[in-house]
Amino acid sequence: MSSKIKTWGFKKDSGELTEASLTTIRGYINMLQENLSKDDVRAVIPLSHGDPSAFPCFRTTSVAEDAVAQAVRSANFNGYSPTVGIPPARTAIAEYLSKDLPEKLSPDDIYLTVGCTQAIEIILTVLARPNANILLPRPGFPYYEARAAFSRLEVRHFDLCPERGWEVDLHEVEALADENTVAIVVINPGNPCGNVYTYDHLKKVAEAARKLGILVIADEVYHHLVYGSNPFVPMGIFGSITPIITLGSISKRWLVPGWRLGWLVTNDPNGILKEYGIVDCIKGFLNISSDPATFIQGALARILGDTKEDFFQETINTLKITADICYSKIKEIPCIICPSKPEGSMFVMVKLNLSLLDDIKDDVDFCVKLAKEESVVILPGIAVGLKNWLRVTFATEPSSLEEGFERVKAFCGRHAKK
Amino acid sequence: MSSKIKTWGFKKDSGELTEASLTTIRGYINMLQENLSKDDVRAVIPLSHGDPSAFPCFRTTSVAEDAVAQAVRSANFNGYSPTVGIPPARTAIAEYLSKDLPEKLSPDDIYLTVGCTQAIEIILTVLARPNANILLPRPGFPYYEARAAFSRLEVRHFDLCPERGWEVDLHEVEALADENTVAIVVINPGNPCGNVYTYDHLKKVAEAARKLGILVIADEVYHHLVYGSNPFVPMGIFGSITPIITLGSISKRWLVPGWRLGWLVTNDPNGILKEYGIVDCIKGFLNISSDPATFIQGALARILGDTKEDFFQETINTLKITADICYSKIKEIPCIICPSKPEGSMFVMVKLNLSLLDDIKDDVDFCVKLAKEESVVILPGIAVGLKNWLRVTFATEPSSLEEGFERVKAFCGRHAKK
Repeated sequence: MSSKIKTWGFKKDSGELTEASLTTIRGYINMLQENLSKDDVRAVIPLSHGDPSAFPCFRTTSVAEDAVAQAVRSANFNGYSPTVGIPPARTAIAEYLSKDLPEKLSPDDIYLTVGCTQAIEIILTVLARPNANILLPRPGFPYYEARAAFSRLEVRHFDLCPERGWEVDLHEVEALADENTVAIVVINPGNPCGNVYTYDHLKKVAEAARKLGILVIADEVYHHLVYGSNPFVPMGIFGSITPIITLGSISKRWLVPGWRLGWLVTNDPNGILKEYGIVDCIKGFLNISSDPATFIQGALARILGDTKEDFFQETINTLKITADICYSKIKEIPCIICPSKPEGSMFVMVKLNLSLLDDIKDDVDFCVKLAKEESVVILPGIAVGLKNWLRVTFATEPSSLEEGFERVKAFCGRHAKK
Repeated sequence: MSSKIKTWGFKKDSGELTEASLTTIRGYINMLQENLSKDDVRAVIPLSHGDPSAFPCFRTTSVAEDAVAQAVRSANFNGYSPTVGIPPARTAIAEYLSKDLPEKLSPDDIYLTVGCTQAIEIILTVLARPNANILLPRPGFPYYEARAAFSRLEVRHFDLCPERGWEVDLHEVEALADENTVAIVVINPGNPCGNVYTYDHLKKVAEAARKLGILVIADEVYHHLVYGSNPFVPMGIFGSITPIITLGSISKRWLVPGWRLGWLVTNDPNGILKEYGIVDCIKGFLNISSDPATFIQGALARILGDTKEDFFQETINTLKITADICYSKIKEIPCIICPSKPEGSMFVMVKLNLSLLDDIKDDVDFCVKLAKEESVVILPGIAVGLKNWLRVTFATEPSSLEEGFERVKAFCGRHAKK
């Protein structure tokens, strides 16, 4: 064989694929972790990501563990599943979600996905076409931006208003949309803001979407994780106003994000999504996509049906306690402003008052120095679209959360303008 | 709200996404199943798809079931995994595969995927770029064509030669390749042909790839499922000749395709894939892709390490018996020719002699009528790229396989030219 060969034919500029991943939350967290000081003997306190499953106070229910163990031992779920999901799992999700809806969902409205992230991938891929654009919230969840970029779907950001409980700025939505707009994304309960929308506000969003002739993608991965005055209202209620695609999973409510079981649901009593080809596209793309493990699908009827209210209530109680700690501790720190107490999900957005700080350039600088000096990891707001804000996760052990904020306070004191 | 609204903005021509899925194996099987006669009281005999897990003689080992049940109950694997996979799983796969290789793989060479299909998705997505083309075998596994079409990667088919044990036609490969060719796909043990390549032939493929400056994608999802004269030789052995990307999973050897645990492995001692940006692209795409369930990853070290040789041997023995039944039964049917006895995987390609049949137009017509009249489902060859051939799966209960061929024989007798 000749040792002189032509240039390898597969040279690849990695820009396209690595760029999207750099802007993900994981990318920022990795960067901060690299900045942790190896000399600090104290434990690292992670207040940065939406996965509380490592903490003993956020352990899932044995009902779910037993259901999975039983399913895997049954040998009934070792084979491939249909690409839309196995029928009993689709039925179980339809029944579970219908409890909160005026009209019963059909199992045919339900598509099983590899966590909620694959549900996002599917709907953005399906909606992408030349010149199309999608309306995304700012601040938001950057996986939407990454998948939209990959599918060459143009992103237009509308603002959430901190002074109005992070409500959607509907005037801005109307101003941004044009004849190439395909959908608006609403995340409720809110990530990263910890807000919970009222029935009235969600209805207004649905009506605005109808007026614009677009569908609503309702990201409800934090469904039912609410502990303030507003109850959780599923967007699907308004499916007769405009077609609603609801995305969800067992990840957050059952505290098992690693199980990778989610769903995409069409709330569309008028059959518009079918008529307009969207349903065929969802099925078509599922045929060339990965499926969630069949035995986890097989466990789903028991997970959704047999989990006791106690388990949910305990999670809510713990989140309420940690949200309270978070809110009161932040009040003690002058350079951090919390516009509203979190009432849902596991996050809160807080604003940095940089004018009170001496040698902190911006949110990224704040977070890098905080990681270095105090071994506390907090996500800079720029990662979710708001420069000079911070996204704080409070789904952690209460003692660890208190310790974390003591360190933030010490850090801010040290860096305060004299 | 006005009842007069503008046209919905998300109308979608479903052609692009549904076309790819129609040409999948599942698409053909669905079509055949719709043709089954409801009046036939006999059981349907499926000889069409690569999932034997429903049959008692192809039940997975309790070692694997126990490992998963233990992992899910440990609460150590409820959280998100790193996008490349958890370190113990990467290490376990590196050790497992290295047993058959001259040089030890590093855990950094291993990327966990949602079954082998996601591994295919990842590498085709990574290699796609304007004007690039990829060389795929004919017959082959149509998921490659579907994902290439989705990524706008041009496909060029080279033939496998039935008269030479389905070897790659290397002259054709050289004639097809040009400066825009990025890779060649080799499936060994063979799906759909049931062949097993020799060391010498695989080495020639690697050398041809090197000469052309392209990489080899070695689909080894049927690794070690061999029962003829040729041993299984992993393509990774030739990683110093040209970079090899090996795709695999536990799906077939452990008889659990529904568990969705696969891998993509870089066999590249010269570091060419890293130098050429491919490794960064794989990592970048994984950052925006779905992950296999964390607790299945957590079970992997035990699954790979603790499974007894007896279990593998039993599967091989059963496949050898069913391959023998298949081969001898086909010999009894004049209009079906089997060019070589299957020695690996779970499939065999057989040729229809249409000149001996009276009212059968082609392979699809044969399979549709067979489903209707005999409740036997066999895949038409066109689904895997060979018109007027059939792909037969023999991974089924031996008694059911014999009964199935008796029905095929009766069918062919009835339709034989007088």
